[in-house]
Amino acid sequence: MHAYKAPLRDIRFVFNELLDASAHYEALGLGDNLSPDVWDAILEEAAKFAEDVLAPTNAVGDEQGCHWSVEGVKTPSGFIEAYKQFVAGGWGGICANPDFGGQGLPSSVGTMVNEMIGSANWSWCMYPGLTASAIRCLEAHGTDAQKAMYLAAMTSGEWSGTMCLTEAHCGSDLGLLRTKAAPQADGSYKISGSKIFITGGEHDLTENIIHLVLARIEGAPSGTKGISLFIVPKYLPNADGSVGARNSLACGSIEHKMGIKGSSTCVMNFDAATGFLLGEENQGLRAMFIMMNAARIGTAVQGLSLAELSYQGALIYARERLQMRSLTGPKNPAGNADPIIVHPDVRRMLLTQKAFVEGSRAFIYWLTLQVDKADRGDADAEELLALLTPIAKAFITETGYEATNLGLQVFGGHGYIREWGMEQIVRDTRISMVYEGTTGIQALDLLARKIMANRGESLTKVIVLIQQFCAANAANNTQREMLDSLQKLSVGWGELTRQLGFKAMQNPDEIGAASVDYLMYSGYIVLAWFWAQMAVVAQQKISAGANEVFYQSKLKTAQFYYARLLPRTKVHYAAIIAGADTLMAVTDEEFLG
Amino acid sequence: MHAYKAPLRDIRFVFNELLDASAHYEALGLGDNLSPDVWDAILEEAAKFAEDVLAPTNAVGDEQGCHWSVEGVKTPSGFIEAYKQFVAGGWGGICANPDFGGQGLPSSVGTMVNEMIGSANWSWCMYPGLTASAIRCLEAHGTDAQKAMYLAAMTSGEWSGTMCLTEAHCGSDLGLLRTKAAPQADGSYKISGSKIFITGGEHDLTENIIHLVLARIEGAPSGTKGISLFIVPKYLPNADGSVGARNSLACGSIEHKMGIKGSSTCVMNFDAATGFLLGEENQGLRAMFIMMNAARIGTAVQGLSLAELSYQGALIYARERLQMRSLTGPKNPAGNADPIIVHPDVRRMLLTQKAFVEGSRAFIYWLTLQVDKADRGDADAEELLALLTPIAKAFITETGYEATNLGLQVFGGHGYIREWGMEQIVRDTRISMVYEGTTGIQALDLLARKIMANRGESLTKVIVLIQQFCAANAANNTQREMLDSLQKLSVGWGELTRQLGFKAMQNPDEIGAASVDYLMYSGYIVLAWFWAQMAVVAQQKISAGANEVFYQSKLKTAQFYYARLLPRTKVHYAAIIAGADTLMAVTDEEFLG
Repeated sequence: MHAYKAPLRDIRFVFNELLDASAHYEALGLGDNLSPDVWDAILEEAAKFAEDVLAPTNAVGDEQGCHWSVEGVKTPSGFIEAYKQFVAGGWGGICANPDFGGQGLPSSVGTMVNEMIGSANWSWCMYPGLTASAIRCLEAHGTDAQKAMYLAAMTSGEWSGTMCLTEAHCGSDLGLLRTKAAPQADGSYKISGSKIFITGGEHDLTENIIHLVLARIEGAPSGTKGISLFIVPKYLPNADGSVGARNSLACGSIEHKMGIKGSSTCVMNFDAATGFLLGEENQGLRAMFIMMNAARIGTAVQGLSLAELSYQGALIYARERLQMRSLTGPKNPAGNADPIIVHPDVRRMLLTQKAFVEGSRAFIYWLTLQVDKADRGDADAEELLALLTPIAKAFITETGYEATNLGLQVFGGHGYIREWGMEQIVRDTRISMVYEGTTGIQALDLLARKIMANRGESLTKVIVLIQQFCAANAANNTQREMLDSLQKLSVGWGELTRQLGFKAMQNPDEIGAASVDYLMYSGYIVLAWFWAQMAVVAQQKISAGANEVFYQSKLKTAQFYYARLLPRTKVHYAAIIAGADTLMAVTDEEFLG
Repeated sequence: MHAYKAPLRDIRFVFNELLDASAHYEALGLGDNLSPDVWDAILEEAAKFAEDVLAPTNAVGDEQGCHWSVEGVKTPSGFIEAYKQFVAGGWGGICANPDFGGQGLPSSVGTMVNEMIGSANWSWCMYPGLTASAIRCLEAHGTDAQKAMYLAAMTSGEWSGTMCLTEAHCGSDLGLLRTKAAPQADGSYKISGSKIFITGGEHDLTENIIHLVLARIEGAPSGTKGISLFIVPKYLPNADGSVGARNSLACGSIEHKMGIKGSSTCVMNFDAATGFLLGEENQGLRAMFIMMNAARIGTAVQGLSLAELSYQGALIYARERLQMRSLTGPKNPAGNADPIIVHPDVRRMLLTQKAFVEGSRAFIYWLTLQVDKADRGDADAEELLALLTPIAKAFITETGYEATNLGLQVFGGHGYIREWGMEQIVRDTRISMVYEGTTGIQALDLLARKIMANRGESLTKVIVLIQQFCAANAANNTQREMLDSLQKLSVGWGELTRQLGFKAMQNPDEIGAASVDYLMYSGYIVLAWFWAQMAVVAQQKISAGANEVFYQSKLKTAQFYYARLLPRTKVHYAAIIAGADTLMAVTDEEFLG
């Protein structure tokens, strides 16, 4: 298995050259704490932690998995040590509130760190990832007393957090949930029920685990309107913040999964466990949904992180593995075969990986700058986020999965063998298209809620941004073809959406029938926007005399993306236009054949 | 995990109603041994074996995997018992020569059996599958004495066989192989070298294992022209056919793989092992390549078998799982949610599976009828096979993998959990795009050897077949749109190929750059041909008064295929037209970014 190297050059390109992040931080009043030097030092340190401390635990985590016993869950070898170093480095709290020991850095910096630690060991990074979500939730909805009780220990990483939503009979449809909360005389609740798929529900990394649990208060309305959110700690904290009595909850078992085996996925049984209402009664789903954009972007990062890891492995292999001759004559005449990177189809696979990885990186980091702004009350950024987050989540995980499969394919038979590490990446990536809302759920959210429900107003804003970019570069003749193609697609995106809107008014099933193809179609256009931006920046650097190979690489990858991947919009377009009829015509019995 | 049910209705439809197999068997002079009744009895018996005996070993095979020790390799629980029943039923020899105890049935019957046992437990079925390949090879190239020595025990299944090709440094490029054969005074050879990825190289199912090994006789030319094939038995047979002395070969280790864990994948070390030349000196690769079409169709069957298994699971789940309401109003008002099959996107996933499964089944079985004919000297059938086999192998495994991933996706989070069985199907399918020649190798074989090298003559014959079918149905107005679309695509296929031929004359890299997209483009057209044929037959039955749901299902699935999947030709077309430039422009350094 190859050693992960953090892609520092490209991260710097995206933040500094493409997005001008230091101007962004200045504008948000963060420039004092986050000068370019400080930002770069964080980048370097996070890269070191990812490469030196975390990456060596990745294969062993998959090999060993987690182990359950009545005493608890044991994580794989090395996970505890890596976690100790993470806590010692203060990484868990970099985006958290300074009042509780955090460093108060914006979300974008956290995402940058997450990309690297996610490539190094995705399973491991889910433990602090869920804690970060729980911290955000407590900060947003907790009382002062609750914040004082929990946030310091969670920010330092001494305690971890979970989000307990899913039950065996409800995943996408949380309105069906049955876990109960019985009010007690002291204002607390007794929580009873069983949750499944709880990431980090039990483990040996921290002395306490703070569960945020969705449950229904006795007598609450049925459906989504009767769901409340509760803090249910594994150990009830004493008044001084120390760990107190064991609460009546337990991990009943852990799941055996296709991948991310080092991450414990727990069945959590709450048996009249003591819980404390977080936020308002019956507002639990809303409280959770506020976290949703962050969690979705976090999952999009998984697509990016693992595609990057796979690309690195495939590229090393393709440059070393000697097999057959180039059809245009030997490229390695001294050897008895050429390295397989000479073969056009191997290049197609590598460039597909590269185009998805770097395009997704630009898209995600731009999105996190919108998160920074939205966190500080910018409504425009909030609107862009609402529209583009489901695209990022589903498109980047779907194409990330494709990229990791191509990485395996480059290795041929060796790709299927565990020791090379390529098949683990495929297995680890596969869940990203499912959790935090499947691709189908993201697509429905995008098309039904984010587009149809506001009559395409948010979409129009994105299309205007793209067209403004094209107009601003109207004089750019070196990228002429690319810009024309982007301009045309942006117009087509709007037209297709209007057309679909008319059809959906006649038949609501048109939305579901088009949704996933519509999301993928949109994703290819958004990525085309970022690739065109990167090409323009690279061209400017070259024109200004920069002769770094990096810029040529960017330009050529952009050209590859436009020539070979962007045409995929055509097939999604055709599927959308084909409509719902052939899907809905089939009766239940006919499915059985 | 759901129980596999053999898709008898569809297999009968394809063989009887679509392909008129009994006329085919009559024409080949096989009608006496293979009347429709006999054929159907074989179908029913094989289905029972697959469902009752083999399917229960599938999950446990994945769970336990194979275990290596110096004594040998232990297969998972139940594999030995299932194998005993397989041998007792005479299944191993159904297509083998009656002179050695086989039943002499045509290859198409073997493929039908393989589909079902392959769905039931793909890992297990690789042991008899490799034996069948070895039998074919021995029949084709063995001396009478060699046949007498090995074929009876292999046909009965008492002995098994392997094909030892790959070495650590050569997979696709066998010209690089180094295993040596030293001639001995008695006419035998001493074989020395190490082979990897040897399926069934060691196991506990049979008393002897007959390895067919590619090696280079001392002094032979380098490259592919100096490779010979050898029979290297684990135990050297005595003159009376009983098992004799242990040969000096051993399984050094087994691979830990992503899937097909019940199939032992062995490193085989030959240490001056006694071997016997099979066929002529330096003709080893050719001898092996004669087996290649059969092995590739066998791998295409894997795509079909596992997609079928996945579709069955996903369909059951989609009909039972209650989650959310239909956008057009409740379909299950008595329940608190609708079954997820009401949602258009779930239907899209299921119908995609169904269209690939049933289309691939028709394609594969038609292909096996060509194998039957080619085996009896039909040169036209041989030509069709040569052209269409790489398409079947790569297209059906690629789309099969897509189908199994969709099956997982229908299950949501549960799909990622082992106990439901859906993720195992994905892992087991993944290797099919790699072994027996990767998708890239199939695509190169198709475009460079099967099309460009004979100036498109074979392709033209297939296009003519399609156009004859369209012409024969010119009066068919119910399938008008479908037939027009097919006719148009068949013309486009020829035009695109000619265009590509001109480009390739200028630059050979255009072939490799287009190859995989060209293969997939071709695959969608071939499947469209079979779907149109099935639609025509189904329509005829309906018009003749048949009111079986099955025929409506076929018609609607054909319409779905044409509306939603066939447009994918557009994107492959666009990628082919885009050409090699953007692939070849990137320098080695630029790949590093």
